[in-house]
Amino acid sequence: MTINAPRGTVDILPKDAKKWQFVENTIKNVCNRFNYEEIRTPVFEHTELFQRGVGDSTDIVQKEMYTFEDRGGRSLTLRPEGTAPVTRAYVQNKLHGSPVQPAKLYYFGQMFRYERPQAGRMRQLNQFGAEVLGSANPAVDAEVIGLAMMCYQELGLRDLKLVINSLGDNESRKNYRNALIEHFTPHKNELCSDCQTRLTQNPLRILDCKTDRNHPAIQTAPSMLDYLNRESKLYFDQVKEYLTMMDIPFTVDKNLVRGLDYYNHTAFEIMSEAEGFGAITTLCGGGRYNGLVEELGGPNTPGIGFGLGLERLLLALEAEKIELPVTEELDCYFIAVGEEAEKQAVRLTYELRKQGIQIDKDYQDRKMKGQFKAADRLHAKFVLILGDEELNNQVINVKSMQTGEQKEIPIPEMVHYMNEMLQGGKA
Amino acid sequence: MTINAPRGTVDILPKDAKKWQFVENTIKNVCNRFNYEEIRTPVFEHTELFQRGVGDSTDIVQKEMYTFEDRGGRSLTLRPEGTAPVTRAYVQNKLHGSPVQPAKLYYFGQMFRYERPQAGRMRQLNQFGAEVLGSANPAVDAEVIGLAMMCYQELGLRDLKLVINSLGDNESRKNYRNALIEHFTPHKNELCSDCQTRLTQNPLRILDCKTDRNHPAIQTAPSMLDYLNRESKLYFDQVKEYLTMMDIPFTVDKNLVRGLDYYNHTAFEIMSEAEGFGAITTLCGGGRYNGLVEELGGPNTPGIGFGLGLERLLLALEAEKIELPVTEELDCYFIAVGEEAEKQAVRLTYELRKQGIQIDKDYQDRKMKGQFKAADRLHAKFVLILGDEELNNQVINVKSMQTGEQKEIPIPEMVHYMNEMLQGGKA
Repeated sequence: MTINAPRGTVDILPKDAKKWQFVENTIKNVCNRFNYEEIRTPVFEHTELFQRGVGDSTDIVQKEMYTFEDRGGRSLTLRPEGTAPVTRAYVQNKLHGSPVQPAKLYYFGQMFRYERPQAGRMRQLNQFGAEVLGSANPAVDAEVIGLAMMCYQELGLRDLKLVINSLGDNESRKNYRNALIEHFTPHKNELCSDCQTRLTQNPLRILDCKTDRNHPAIQTAPSMLDYLNRESKLYFDQVKEYLTMMDIPFTVDKNLVRGLDYYNHTAFEIMSEAEGFGAITTLCGGGRYNGLVEELGGPNTPGIGFGLGLERLLLALEAEKIELPVTEELDCYFIAVGEEAEKQAVRLTYELRKQGIQIDKDYQDRKMKGQFKAADRLHAKFVLILGDEELNNQVINVKSMQTGEQKEIPIPEMVHYMNEMLQGGKA
Repeated sequence: MTINAPRGTVDILPKDAKKWQFVENTIKNVCNRFNYEEIRTPVFEHTELFQRGVGDSTDIVQKEMYTFEDRGGRSLTLRPEGTAPVTRAYVQNKLHGSPVQPAKLYYFGQMFRYERPQAGRMRQLNQFGAEVLGSANPAVDAEVIGLAMMCYQELGLRDLKLVINSLGDNESRKNYRNALIEHFTPHKNELCSDCQTRLTQNPLRILDCKTDRNHPAIQTAPSMLDYLNRESKLYFDQVKEYLTMMDIPFTVDKNLVRGLDYYNHTAFEIMSEAEGFGAITTLCGGGRYNGLVEELGGPNTPGIGFGLGLERLLLALEAEKIELPVTEELDCYFIAVGEEAEKQAVRLTYELRKQGIQIDKDYQDRKMKGQFKAADRLHAKFVLILGDEELNNQVINVKSMQTGEQKEIPIPEMVHYMNEMLQGGKA
């Protein structure tokens, strides 16, 4: 009986892995331009981290986490998101003590959410994310948004929509919270049971409830933007001004609150507007979380970041019919005929590889014709042929599969010759 | 109160992440020369996969796995090793049906083992591994060993020891098994309790028991090599001949059996012989597993592969005092003085980044002097200075931090000029 991968997870096979590599390398290159550096945190964390850092009242913590006890009785959780772990690492490793501030960090990692799997929603998903810790400058908010946008644009995506909002500082958020409670209390019994709980715990999250989203009270709810105090309004205005200067178009959506508890000030999402992209259009979400470092035991430190789903990014590339420049090619294939030639082939392919040349050979005891076929299947640019005659003369026959041209090369000159041919071919 | 990373796990901070990136890129480059392609499997699998694919009687399965039930009651396990998942993926995705054979695959991934943490032994560890499925050619065994060796050597490691052995085919292994039972039964009561169980379940594993390794009966145990039948002996001879032709030195160790159940024929380990490397010297272990694909529900298909610990590789680099060519440098740093200059700085850094240039700026409201200091800390090669005067003239002052040279460049010519300067600097 065969065993399959667990529900909601997939294998990334070689053909697709090349696309993933291309996407990741492009994003890393963009991060490098922005001077963001990589951080890697463990796949699991103490459960308490997410309870405190994501929020006890969120769907993620209440319904979607992979939580288990290890053999020592500790409660561990496979990370459902990347911000809390990076912030935990920032505090634990005392990065706030570094003279280089702010800390500009990025990560790639698998995230885990126990949800009903569907297109663009896996139980194990891959995210790229960035976090900036240590600056409350609105130009950082614009930079972080710009980083996410540039990653998409470098890959060729065009049909993107950036939506932003401000949740204000603590004072603004508190006033708004009270206004929301006042607004929704008369409708309490009409709301879903989750929202009835949210009404007292975290009323902002009623605004992005999937069940109640068409309830008229949501349409008529007061706007956060009317409750921003002077500082919060000024902060939001500056973020918008910077985005405008950077030529990054955006829309303000007063109902954008994000699912996590720890956000304040800027919140943003990037959506795909590509035709036929499917029901879940959010590609990336992020925002500012000035209270999180303190919540996790560090000094009062502002922070902002985003998480960007890589599976959805690949779906968006497909929806926009973007072909990544990923090739299936092989530089050289070694064809050996005869027992002694086979031994020499083992030696010579290893030698060529040592010298940096990409080469493969047959391991299926194929005859000459079959080896040529294998070279074709691998899209080899050159085949190197070694038979009895060549062995006697200590040469190798090098054939270009593009031009059909064939040349005898003395074995000691092989590396030099192949390097020349391959560089010529690439130029 | 702060929350730390779980015991046996660590964060990889930016400075170290650069080393990891270098090591991984070097290995990927070597894999590419050998025409191995990347595969990615999920972090967790059905527990049954490891019970069947690693073996119920192994320490890994009995003592070291992170096993838990998901919210749907499935028993899942964080992968403790990479061979069973890759083989599962090969079967599930029917890679045996591809015309390109054998499948030559590599992976990078976190592995999870609940052990007592110590130097070189983490609960979450990182492995690079390779697997070749679909060929029983001894030249593949030599290629796989050569791939591992070349990865180390490209990184500069020299103090390596390759140890090989043959476990033979099923017939040979069965005969040897009987000989071992006969040999150890008189000593049963002197062996550790694990080995007493092993004696009936898997007597080969007595040979690599850490507790009993100094027991005289282990020294006098019969050698596998005396029980190889003709085919197995021939196969092993060919592997050794190929390694010799490839100029890869090796030692035969008749007690090398590896901890996993599914191995047959070639088994190998690569150890560090660097002074002061520490107690655990094994860097890489692998071998042939011709029965595994069938065990996991696929057609009868030979396989061979290895797992190579990346934490230990980094420790070996340290022990051999090898400095990786990893630099802490920044191409450009933007220094803006004044409110309007700050806005232009936001716009221009974004523009320069869009054009591929690496540049950072201040986000801490530092004065000019502080911004210069920040540029120094980041080892900036160039600073771009924009003050009131430059703004009036629509120029930017570009200063080389290496030579101290300074030049006024019209803003529209910035990208072109910086590209020239940076390419010149790199050449």
